[in-house]
Amino acid sequence: MRTEIFEQPAALRATIDALLPRVAEVAAIAPKVRQVLFFARGTSDNAAVYGSYLIQTAAGRLASLGSPSVATTYHAKMDLSGVLAVGLSQSGATREIVETLAWAADCGARTVAITNGAGSALAEVAELGLITGAGTERAVPATKTFTCQLAALAVLALGLGANLDAGELRGLPDRIADQLGHVGDPRYGLAEIVAELADVNGLVVSARGLAYSAALELALKVKEACYLNAMGISWADLQHGPIAVVDARNPAVIMAADTGPTLDAAVSLARRVAGAGARVYAIGGGEALASASNRALPGPGLPEWLAPIGLIVPGQLLTEALSRRLGIDPDNPRGLSKVTQTA
Amino acid sequence: MRTEIFEQPAALRATIDALLPRVAEVAAIAPKVRQVLFFARGTSDNAAVYGSYLIQTAAGRLASLGSPSVATTYHAKMDLSGVLAVGLSQSGATREIVETLAWAADCGARTVAITNGAGSALAEVAELGLITGAGTERAVPATKTFTCQLAALAVLALGLGANLDAGELRGLPDRIADQLGHVGDPRYGLAEIVAELADVNGLVVSARGLAYSAALELALKVKEACYLNAMGISWADLQHGPIAVVDARNPAVIMAADTGPTLDAAVSLARRVAGAGARVYAIGGGEALASASNRALPGPGLPEWLAPIGLIVPGQLLTEALSRRLGIDPDNPRGLSKVTQTA
Repeated sequence: MRTEIFEQPAALRATIDALLPRVAEVAAIAPKVRQVLFFARGTSDNAAVYGSYLIQTAAGRLASLGSPSVATTYHAKMDLSGVLAVGLSQSGATREIVETLAWAADCGARTVAITNGAGSALAEVAELGLITGAGTERAVPATKTFTCQLAALAVLALGLGANLDAGELRGLPDRIADQLGHVGDPRYGLAEIVAELADVNGLVVSARGLAYSAALELALKVKEACYLNAMGISWADLQHGPIAVVDARNPAVIMAADTGPTLDAAVSLARRVAGAGARVYAIGGGEALASASNRALPGPGLPEWLAPIGLIVPGQLLTEALSRRLGIDPDNPRGLSKVTQTA
Repeated sequence: MRTEIFEQPAALRATIDALLPRVAEVAAIAPKVRQVLFFARGTSDNAAVYGSYLIQTAAGRLASLGSPSVATTYHAKMDLSGVLAVGLSQSGATREIVETLAWAADCGARTVAITNGAGSALAEVAELGLITGAGTERAVPATKTFTCQLAALAVLALGLGANLDAGELRGLPDRIADQLGHVGDPRYGLAEIVAELADVNGLVVSARGLAYSAALELALKVKEACYLNAMGISWADLQHGPIAVVDARNPAVIMAADTGPTLDAAVSLARRVAGAGARVYAIGGGEALASASNRALPGPGLPEWLAPIGLIVPGQLLTEALSRRLGIDPDNPRGLSKVTQTA
């Protein structure tokens, strides 16, 4: 897992080099597409959350996550004309997602696959396959395949007419490399956070808007590789009940881009959680969020629309180190295999 | 909270009596409605999940959950013609949902409010207000307002042409009353489960399809009133990583209707969780799920489409009893107030 975390600059470069030239192919589908509907599970679902926010906020089209069981368990019939159905699966072999994308096409949707599996069943079933260039991923907890999915979703948004700077996407791999270059610095602060998290009962990981996808993904990594009951939640939802969980044995990690319209509320939430007697760890959010938190890991210094791709990187490092600290092998956690089929 | 749990038959009867005659008003909006988009937070979000599955599986229209921050934080512009936006809020006073519904109307959507707040801001902003008849709810954890929201969503589905038997909905309050009538029976089994859950680290609550809404809601109740990190998750997603969390200190509650296409997989999941060394508690799922679990609470004996309304009832009773057992006042948990505003 650690090796693959550090392979992300190269994996992202390969993905962006392969997919950015294909923006026009996405655009060719776009004119009649009213909205985007994502189908995914696990890590890929967290990537879809990013795609959903990005397409709605930057490409001005409705985007949401669909429920595969509507297709595969209930065999519902509906009119999906004007819908672009996007199936995400790292392996491209998850039958449930392949079947759901085929169902969406039968219902009249256009279809795109985003997968690391060239030639996979998912790539074959879709009209357009956006293949990420992450290379082989061996650790069970996905890292580089996740960030490459996010890069592919950025390309999808550009193809759907998002008002975003493709040059910023081209510069992304270098920003991630810069970020990983600081990890060896003794001031980086990871070891202290890992030590403090070694005896918690559970963890709340919160963010909002675009960064929410990174919070969901960090919570999933911690569940998979640290066996901790980590709750990934938007802080709007957190305040509608679950904040009662936060206490000395259940600290919070708050993630935010260094800029953007969600930052002020992130800082307010950090103060509220600290006021409830819980430790708060920041990932990103600049000086404002760091100073409202007990400890902080720096974010990627990317514009808000790309920040989730860099915000998860310290989260991956944290997960890997905490997993080892807890005596777990992060590459092969219990109960999991690399390709998951839904019963 | 306990009093309000037992008020549910009367609250449901008042709600159904008031709303079933209004199916035609919903139908009058329906012809040009291609899909439904729900906006909600907390408990109301869990109700929206039920609405989404019900409308997709029984009314053959796409339905999904929208992200309020797209409207209130990012001020996105998009074309929502053909969309029925449904805002849910028990109080009808949550500004974020009121603002989001107004935004949806500006984007071209038709709008419906489902709220227990007659004359509330949410009821006023919507074209059509479906007001639930739960009466005043005093305990912070919502119970009767939640089940009444589900009944209102069943009416919405009927208005959208769902191929369902309204007579079954009319009979629902009596079925819930029957269910509550068995709670005093010493064989009911609640006390043993509460005793076993008193020292867990966390809880996984899982279901699929229509019943998934009840699992999310039970997990939220346990977070709110027992301060336990409870993960509400579809079992398809559970198998994509989070199942690693399940162990002797993190048992699972599995919820299912007594019939329907998700039951077999519920039984398989119970066996898999037990095989991982964790205790499994069933709510519903008939003899098949009970015999695959360590302990079981009976479900409501309702058809699958109405089962979630009855499956949450044993969950509410479990939450209330566990909260008291843990020395918490379930009516007034820490950190929460009855009407939540998002910062």
